[in-house]
Amino acid sequence: MAVYTEVSAEDLACFVADYDLGELLSFKGIAEGVENSNYLLQAEKGSYILTLYEKRVAAEDLPFFLGLMEHLAGRGISCPVPLHAGDGKALRQLCGRPAALISFLEGLSPRRAQTFHCSALGAALARMHLAGADFPLQRRNALSVDGWRPLLEACAGRADTVSPGLAEALESELKHLEANWPDKLPAGVIHADLFPDNVFFRREQLTGIIDFYFACNDFFAYDLAVCLNAWCFEQDNAFNVTKARMLLQSYSRERAFSEAELEALPLLARGSALRFLLTRLYDWLHHPEGAFVQPKDPLEYWKKLKFHQEVRGPGAYGLDL
Amino acid sequence: MAVYTEVSAEDLACFVADYDLGELLSFKGIAEGVENSNYLLQAEKGSYILTLYEKRVAAEDLPFFLGLMEHLAGRGISCPVPLHAGDGKALRQLCGRPAALISFLEGLSPRRAQTFHCSALGAALARMHLAGADFPLQRRNALSVDGWRPLLEACAGRADTVSPGLAEALESELKHLEANWPDKLPAGVIHADLFPDNVFFRREQLTGIIDFYFACNDFFAYDLAVCLNAWCFEQDNAFNVTKARMLLQSYSRERAFSEAELEALPLLARGSALRFLLTRLYDWLHHPEGAFVQPKDPLEYWKKLKFHQEVRGPGAYGLDL
Repeated sequence: MAVYTEVSAEDLACFVADYDLGELLSFKGIAEGVENSNYLLQAEKGSYILTLYEKRVAAEDLPFFLGLMEHLAGRGISCPVPLHAGDGKALRQLCGRPAALISFLEGLSPRRAQTFHCSALGAALARMHLAGADFPLQRRNALSVDGWRPLLEACAGRADTVSPGLAEALESELKHLEANWPDKLPAGVIHADLFPDNVFFRREQLTGIIDFYFACNDFFAYDLAVCLNAWCFEQDNAFNVTKARMLLQSYSRERAFSEAELEALPLLARGSALRFLLTRLYDWLHHPEGAFVQPKDPLEYWKKLKFHQEVRGPGAYGLDL
Repeated sequence: MAVYTEVSAEDLACFVADYDLGELLSFKGIAEGVENSNYLLQAEKGSYILTLYEKRVAAEDLPFFLGLMEHLAGRGISCPVPLHAGDGKALRQLCGRPAALISFLEGLSPRRAQTFHCSALGAALARMHLAGADFPLQRRNALSVDGWRPLLEACAGRADTVSPGLAEALESELKHLEANWPDKLPAGVIHADLFPDNVFFRREQLTGIIDFYFACNDFFAYDLAVCLNAWCFEQDNAFNVTKARMLLQSYSRERAFSEAELEALPLLARGSALRFLLTRLYDWLHHPEGAFVQPKDPLEYWKKLKFHQEVRGPGAYGLDL
């Protein structure tokens, strides 16, 4: 939500001269994405996003992220496309940082998801999973089950300051997930962070999916589990089964679930809730005193996790088995 | 440099429905302005800036700021213009804050001012001073000489932690300025914060002046003194007399200086340097530990102030008397 690297007009004019954009008319640092610096550029030929990759993004992952966007866009998925400079390269350098110029997508992210949003999301997610099938690069999910214990260990000593008993409850949940996490489900490239912030709509139509910087290879159903958590709870953390049904039904019309995927969904939803709980808890406990960016409430995900712990089967998500 | 109030797509769509923009296509929080929350909107009819006024801006000053922009734009000055909603109002409410929708200006702010920038700036500043002559509202300059002592008092106890001897030097400088500050010079509406950030160019042409939220009634020559400090020193804080000459000469071709204004220029330049030194020093000493926004170096203005202390007359700024 900030601009970490300040780019001058002079540096930028020099950078974009290698692209075919026409004259640069304006640029503004934008408050988008937690990890990188982003600028919205307006040039004679249109609008673009300039992203400078900051230290939290591993430079060796950038070919995966940029290549994936290009691959998906080439298969009809509406997502940002990296532009190639005159030298043919999409990944370049600006102000000492890896940088890429990316197409701009119109659309608005909903603050409060409606059922029609969930329905459109399900179909788009399934199409994205199918479109990624022949993407040749691989990236493991660093924030899946084997990444959670180090996070918990970094938080456990102070977790109870956030909510009494939290450390023990998280330890017990993590043990359960480690013991029961599936090792074989349909898998491929997933988005892994598909929150409403990262999906654009124009009225009822989904116009784009952005922010592929957590994308990785993992179970397709895990992406659905992330969406169940991010799209199907109300503001008061009550689960909205209608939204879940819309999401899953419209997904399944594009890509049918296997029985094993359906059976795994409650566990994957617990895992996804724990993943966001742990990263939020980490940020909550480690953010600098007085920092401007207010960390997100980890306990929102604790409530979601408790909901999934009570779920006895995928029927709770609105599916007729 | 941040978005303080987060506006949802739903709230925004509702807000802009009262304007004649066509459909809203996208909006991004932008890192512009220290005091307010700003969004760049793209709609069917063009691009706009939405500003939500945060607590540091006094609500009673908003009619002055918005009215001034409209007044100046009506007299051919290229500056943002507040749009009027269907109810005729330019100043409205959004998310519990005063808010205005303002036209978007193309152009880029130079990081390193060149002589041609200074020349264009001088002419635009003089035209702005003339265009403001019949603006009916008044606002006193809260950051002129009588506003500096409270700032110094809030900093004096710790000023020496920034640079040994600074507190005493500032006290002595402020006494000199209080004793010698002019009380009668040509005056009118001034911008009072005309840093390169606030001036847009397209190639060599000045395309706009923005950010009128320090505008007030004060000496015209004080605005020039601000520009001398903000535009005519090099990165190493060496004064560039050629840039100063371009600035002042092109100003004087649009609005001739009085002799008293010329004589006062070195003192006004000291005052303007002290004003930015004090506000930066205040922010330096009072910013929260670990805050994301790094305060600007107050000592840059200490070096500029020392330059002006040695000046014996306006000839040092490149003027032939």
